[in-house]
Amino acid sequence: MADTDKTPRPKKTPRPKAQTPKGFRDYFGPEVTRRKEMLDKIAEVYYRYGFDPLETSAVETVESLGKFLPDVDRPNDGVFAWQEEDKDWLALRYDLTAPLARVAAQYRDDLPSPYRRYAMGPVWRNEKPGPGRFRQFYQCDADTVGAPSVAADAEICAMLADVLEAVGIARGDYIIRVNNRKVLNGVLEVAGLSGDDKEAERGIVLRAIDKLDRLGIEGVRALLGAGRRDESGDFTKGANLATASVEKILEFLGANDAAAQQLYDAGDLLEETDLPSDGLIDAAFSANAETGSFVPRSLAQGQLQRTSVLRILEKIVGISTIGQEGVLELREIATLLNAQGYSPDRIVIDPSVVRGLGYYTGPVFEAELTFETLDEKGVARQFGSVAGGGRYDDLVKRFTGQEVPATGVSIGVDRLLAALAERNKGMLEKNDLVVVTVMDRDRMADYLAIVANLRKSNIRAEVYLGNPKNFGNQLKYADKRNAAFAIIQGEDEHARGVVQIKDLKLGARLAATVTHEEWKDQPAQFECALGDLVAEITKRLGCA
Amino acid sequence: MADTDKTPRPKKTPRPKAQTPKGFRDYFGPEVTRRKEMLDKIAEVYYRYGFDPLETSAVETVESLGKFLPDVDRPNDGVFAWQEEDKDWLALRYDLTAPLARVAAQYRDDLPSPYRRYAMGPVWRNEKPGPGRFRQFYQCDADTVGAPSVAADAEICAMLADVLEAVGIARGDYIIRVNNRKVLNGVLEVAGLSGDDKEAERGIVLRAIDKLDRLGIEGVRALLGAGRRDESGDFTKGANLATASVEKILEFLGANDAAAQQLYDAGDLLEETDLPSDGLIDAAFSANAETGSFVPRSLAQGQLQRTSVLRILEKIVGISTIGQEGVLELREIATLLNAQGYSPDRIVIDPSVVRGLGYYTGPVFEAELTFETLDEKGVARQFGSVAGGGRYDDLVKRFTGQEVPATGVSIGVDRLLAALAERNKGMLEKNDLVVVTVMDRDRMADYLAIVANLRKSNIRAEVYLGNPKNFGNQLKYADKRNAAFAIIQGEDEHARGVVQIKDLKLGARLAATVTHEEWKDQPAQFECALGDLVAEITKRLGCA
Repeated sequence: MADTDKTPRPKKTPRPKAQTPKGFRDYFGPEVTRRKEMLDKIAEVYYRYGFDPLETSAVETVESLGKFLPDVDRPNDGVFAWQEEDKDWLALRYDLTAPLARVAAQYRDDLPSPYRRYAMGPVWRNEKPGPGRFRQFYQCDADTVGAPSVAADAEICAMLADVLEAVGIARGDYIIRVNNRKVLNGVLEVAGLSGDDKEAERGIVLRAIDKLDRLGIEGVRALLGAGRRDESGDFTKGANLATASVEKILEFLGANDAAAQQLYDAGDLLEETDLPSDGLIDAAFSANAETGSFVPRSLAQGQLQRTSVLRILEKIVGISTIGQEGVLELREIATLLNAQGYSPDRIVIDPSVVRGLGYYTGPVFEAELTFETLDEKGVARQFGSVAGGGRYDDLVKRFTGQEVPATGVSIGVDRLLAALAERNKGMLEKNDLVVVTVMDRDRMADYLAIVANLRKSNIRAEVYLGNPKNFGNQLKYADKRNAAFAIIQGEDEHARGVVQIKDLKLGARLAATVTHEEWKDQPAQFECALGDLVAEITKRLGCA
Repeated sequence: MADTDKTPRPKKTPRPKAQTPKGFRDYFGPEVTRRKEMLDKIAEVYYRYGFDPLETSAVETVESLGKFLPDVDRPNDGVFAWQEEDKDWLALRYDLTAPLARVAAQYRDDLPSPYRRYAMGPVWRNEKPGPGRFRQFYQCDADTVGAPSVAADAEICAMLADVLEAVGIARGDYIIRVNNRKVLNGVLEVAGLSGDDKEAERGIVLRAIDKLDRLGIEGVRALLGAGRRDESGDFTKGANLATASVEKILEFLGANDAAAQQLYDAGDLLEETDLPSDGLIDAAFSANAETGSFVPRSLAQGQLQRTSVLRILEKIVGISTIGQEGVLELREIATLLNAQGYSPDRIVIDPSVVRGLGYYTGPVFEAELTFETLDEKGVARQFGSVAGGGRYDDLVKRFTGQEVPATGVSIGVDRLLAALAERNKGMLEKNDLVVVTVMDRDRMADYLAIVANLRKSNIRAEVYLGNPKNFGNQLKYADKRNAAFAIIQGEDEHARGVVQIKDLKLGARLAATVTHEEWKDQPAQFECALGDLVAEITKRLGCA
């Protein structure tokens, strides 16, 4: 019928795009393996310290996540959230601490107290993705809930040092810095900024010192005083504190450098380090390029620094009770760490650690990698912070009304992985695959028997499963798989009970160096009795 | 002012409930460890077979997940989905196959072909939760993309057998059954149900045989014929197929049992098994109580069964080309498996495997645990299926329009874990924790030094970090932690350079058996020089 002809054909649904959602990514082969290996090593250390694994669901009620209350139509600011049919809002966890708080409250009668737990897994942030910033990434946390004493904080610091060494960061290539929020509170008190009416000022101070890493000491000075004009010309209004107050706060932030300066003035630095003949002080202070903080070069330097910086802090906080308490805590942490052999060449007291100082309520710690690498432009740079944490004493209060002390650390999985990749640059990728090629497709059973035999001896092996017609494609496949060896058995080899082994890595090396004449001899290919194949490959993989 | 007084106080926000969202759960300590150990062992086998790990993001675009197109207001039927600010719909993955399809299409120019990959991780289903049914659970898949030959299917079956043995299922305690969709297609053809006009009938047949496990052969017979009245009196209309067609299909489903019957009739079974003197056939056939299928009791039985069942199938499919192709594929899989040493005592041909037969396009496999355990009521039951898979040749077609062959397997992580827990019931939990108690809080540094020393020798150790005032609480804590040893060092012990070791497990055993008089001697507590502590604990943990 004419009618039917005119009816437009039903539009085909367009094919969906095969695409990872914006801000998300996939991890392939070695990327997955390397992260798993690192996390396994970290978990081993956590476990040895008595921490138990905990795996909470990825999904939480928005109510229990807090911060993101369902008082707006779509409470997905920062989180991925959706409304259920029963009207409840659910969301993907944005960190591992909020779920811990929920668990600590929900199971408080069943969990041991103190409760040490570790958790590792993805978290999700509904943020604008940027270069290297993804909306799903791994976190790796360890926390102790219900332990009020600084012994718990010291334990976390020691564990952090063990973790870094376990994953392959050598001693001397990292430093753990410890600060204390209570000391800052003491400083604020003696700077005339305690009192309920000064909350706004304290907020400005906290935000200003939080920018120390980025703006340096002079930037913070400006923000505490009249204000700061940045390079673009924009002006940020300052806190307009009295000069004496500003100086108190800067003195606190700079206590570590001041201690180093004292050591230098006393000649103590020169004896311990082999500094270049000019720019002495600079070199001593600039090992940490980002913050300009002092990194001890020896155990003795570190011990002197600890003593010196604690003395300076004691002086700054003066008669403030909370300040004195903070200094005492730092001193106790230092003592406890010394007793366990975690000397100040690994863990230092450093009031320039400001990250999270607004959030934490007691000790604050940060692990920094201190070795230098060259970036693409050949400029030396440091990896900087790879882990941070501290004490936060109101973990479950939202749920139960009770204050429960908690302290913990979170490791930046991606940063640490990147640092390790940099450290191990040039090291050979694990390369242990044997590809058995298919010369005669009717003899697939024989080839499968060969791989089965290799696997029985724990050798990673596979048979080529594509179309075997073009043998060149099989070798290209083996290359793409980064295989160590290709095994070839044609009719002739089969009749003689042998196989050809192609050493693909040796082949690639030789191809780059030997002449065509030499190449024709195929020095990277050799024959082997089928019965000796496993032994031969085992030997060669061991040597590789 | 009066006004102010009358203003009602701002309502306090009620405290949030500390609760896992409905249908989700948390995993603690050993639950996490046991699953990780199992998955690690599985990954090791997958890796040895040349499979590469792949970790896709948990979040996919709804478009790329398929099935759940954004043509309704809220496309969250079965998935957790939400709309982004830019109007895109995102969703949590509901399995690991849909992301693989997306990856295979997205990276098709970069991935090796064939591409073997494994993936393990949580998936999310927006379904009504039930007892033991959660809305987040683990999957553990291995798939080969781009390999058209049945060698790829045989490889998956062999790998599945290796996986089960690697996690601790003994040979003989599992059976892998292989069927083929093409054989069913052949059966449908000779039953007069091919042809485009018979699609509806074929659908009914597929749905009916999918219920074989639940309804048994008679139930399926009813559904293929006039219909079936269930126990509640409800009537399901049948396919009303001709009797000859029904018999063909039932012959196909019962081929494995028929083969066993033939062996029995020929006396072949009796020689190989030691069956009880009565109920011979029952015993031979009922090893798999759930489906009533035959499980070979020996290699010879298995070989006879394979030959026999293939002969029966050949007869059933008659002249159907697709049916003959299917039987040929099964035969080839059997040959390839034999060549690798995977004999029919582990992998059998069994057309009663119907799960997924509607979805897959070629070989279909299922792994079943065959050992019996007693449930709470003392009734013997089997765990049944713990893994399944097959060939599906239109994996990436949705994205690219191209047919790409793929075959794979998915392991039911929770079921397999439950089976292993049952298998290992009565085995002692790993129990290797040392708790160092705090007798004197001023000597915390000493106690920390003791644990640091233990950890250095890879002993799991922790110091008690709660309030040390009540010593009884410390021992209760050690019990709750399921610790092996508690270490005690009071003033007196410190002065003498010794520690007390309490063997908590021995203590618990003795407390149950010895008299009060004997108990007073504290046979589970002994003294040890501080310097010998590590050696002593190492020795005792090794013996435990």
